[in-house]
Amino acid sequence: MEYGSETLASLVKAFSRLPGIGTKTAQRLALFLLRGTNEEAETLGRLLLTLKDKVRFCRRCGGITEAEECAICKDPARNRQQICVVEEPQDVLTLEKTGQYRGLYHVLHGVLSPIDGVTPDKLNLRALVERVKAGDVREVIVATNPTVEGDATALYVAKSLTPSECTVTRLARGLPMGGTLEFADSTTLIRAIERREKL
Amino acid sequence: MEYGSETLASLVKAFSRLPGIGTKTAQRLALFLLRGTNEEAETLGRLLLTLKDKVRFCRRCGGITEAEECAICKDPARNRQQICVVEEPQDVLTLEKTGQYRGLYHVLHGVLSPIDGVTPDKLNLRALVERVKAGDVREVIVATNPTVEGDATALYVAKSLTPSECTVTRLARGLPMGGTLEFADSTTLIRAIERREKL
Repeated sequence: MEYGSETLASLVKAFSRLPGIGTKTAQRLALFLLRGTNEEAETLGRLLLTLKDKVRFCRRCGGITEAEECAICKDPARNRQQICVVEEPQDVLTLEKTGQYRGLYHVLHGVLSPIDGVTPDKLNLRALVERVKAGDVREVIVATNPTVEGDATALYVAKSLTPSECTVTRLARGLPMGGTLEFADSTTLIRAIERREKL
Repeated sequence: MEYGSETLASLVKAFSRLPGIGTKTAQRLALFLLRGTNEEAETLGRLLLTLKDKVRFCRRCGGITEAEECAICKDPARNRQQICVVEEPQDVLTLEKTGQYRGLYHVLHGVLSPIDGVTPDKLNLRALVERVKAGDVREVIVATNPTVEGDATALYVAKSLTPSECTVTRLARGLPMGGTLEFADSTTLIRAIERREKL
């Protein structure tokens, strides 16, 4: 009984299983909640118990929702001719924060990675092909991460959609805004030179 | 409904109230649990709900326990003539990890800080005076943090114990082991020169 309490020791262990939380941080979180009001720990506890029951993934796009379909898929104001393909549900949140994109989304729930056993059939990909086949989608914007796995997935998505008539695009690569040449990595810089834009 | 789900939004909010957890980290934790097994979220949830009921503070020393008295206070092998005074329960864990100290503890549950309204009566201090008065305590080792507040608290503890016959000591200050002079701050260095030890 390292912590003088089984419950506290288990809580520290449970917290330290979360990503980016080491034992020290887990200990700090557990002791913070122990010192805090009853309500704080209980609110968090109750939310965690209902999380899996309440939150589900939209049957159309795979985004987060508490209903059958998510708010974005149901919104009549969104442009149904554009679908933005992302790796994870949080990517939808990130893109929505820009307020720029007004089309629909499709969440793959992962990225191709044969080493980790993530083959195309493990992704939410067949549903995308069906959506494109069924509706009048004009453009599929592949917004996977600019990593080796993300790029491989983007190419696979494009190939899967080849027989259809819609355009497949992906997000631009280049220098991030506000950055300096000095601190740009050379891969990004090479890409930025290759894809230079007309002024 | 920023997250497409009230439950998820509330969970992110609850996580981000914890110390050192910002909105981005909170989001990552919530989505990790959402993607994980039912068991993970439920285990954490159930532990949080029982935390406040099960875990309490030892009526003798203020340390963490699930019983009336903590394991250290009950342990007949510990030296009852020494009491180590610390600020928070986690300090007991840190000191226990060294395996060096075999006496008892006393947790103040805070540190004097008049600006934040923490006056001596808010600390678990009267109980310490009683313990020293009642038992045959020979030495009180004040192990508050080497900060302005910690030092002020240490002095206050020493003053509170003045009429008693026990010795009051505090942890040595100086260069941390394994560090280099180059990176030592000047306050530490000045202290290390002043309190130089005979070789």
